[in-house]
Amino acid sequence: MTIEHLNSGEILSQGTATDTTVYLCGLTGGDTSKDVAGQTRDVLAKIDACLAHYGTDKSKLLTAVIYLDDLRRKPAMNEVWKEWLGDLNRPARACVGAQLEMGTQVEIMVTAAR
Amino acid sequence: MTIEHLNSGEILSQGTATDTTVYLCGLTGGDTSKDVAGQTRDVLAKIDACLAHYGTDKSKLLTAVIYLDDLRRKPAMNEVWKEWLGDLNRPARACVGAQLEMGTQVEIMVTAAR
Amino acid sequence: MTIEHLNSGEILSQGTATDTTVYLCGLTGGDTSKDVAGQTRDVLAKIDACLAHYGTDKSKLLTAVIYLDDLRRKPAMNEVWKEWLGDLNRPARACVGAQLEMGTQVEIMVTAAR
Repeated sequence: MTIEHLNSGEILSQGTATDTTVYLCGLTGGDTSKDVAGQTRDVLAKIDACLAHYGTDKSKLLTAVIYLDDLRRKPAMNEVWKEWLGDLNRPARACVGAQLEMGTQVEIMVTAAR
Repeated sequence: MTIEHLNSGEILSQGTATDTTVYLCGLTGGDTSKDVAGQTRDVLAKIDACLAHYGTDKSKLLTAVIYLDDLRRKPAMNEVWKEWLGDLNRPARACVGAQLEMGTQVEIMVTAAR
Repeated sequence: MTIEHLNSGEILSQGTATDTTVYLCGLTGGDTSKDVAGQTRDVLAKIDACLAHYGTDKSKLLTAVIYLDDLRRKPAMNEVWKEWLGDLNRPARACVGAQLEMGTQVEIMVTAAR
């Protein structure tokens, strides 16, 4: 089976995909001066762009794992998340607290059908 | 590809499925007055119900990621887990400690073939 | 669909596979006297062996989730990771800090196409 890689660096690819399924890396916003809402918006914009590269979109999400540096940020993250998904079908999701890079408040790893 | 969603709320679906694979959300027991064994039993019952919805069962588990709020609870969780799986084939599993919602001692996210 | 299990114990299988996809468990090195570089080398050797069992290899990795007991070990882990992957296509990867078994500094869970 051919695997389609997106933006491969020396450590990881932003995405890998088979003919049926897209797997994105754990995406972070990059601008750690933003609060969790701002960082989440940046992550979700990256997810949109990566999914578009593979000809799919957030309506076809299968799973999401969300890592927060502090689970108390979950309500603020969820507001942005809900606004982003709107009335679309939601993925199967887990959200847990984990140690992230200094200043990173949210990291999201999703899979989607294509 | 059509994605079958199970119990979609405004944040997540309890499950998503393609024609070949079922993805469940990170499930918790809900009753935080129970100890880790009791919470694990409740989670596993939910997994059984969700898998049944998709016409599959625990004999077809592919992966499981188990988050514990304190990894020292792993032996107690494992006892319930082993009893549940019995002689069935086991999934590929990881179990790590992570920050969970207050009072939640275990959260489990599985995938299965159908 | 038939699931092919690898080294099933009473708790987990080291791997599960469908006709298209291989799922490995969260693998650890086993020798906790080693530093994170040594433990990572041991994990990656196990991944190679498990993938070979299924007739695939690291060039076909789809995803990797890396758990470190302390995220400050990420640069040392990454050195071994990069050396292992060489010029191959990289998987979609996330790397977060989580509570691991005492002495375990790194645990890696991958999926691959076959």
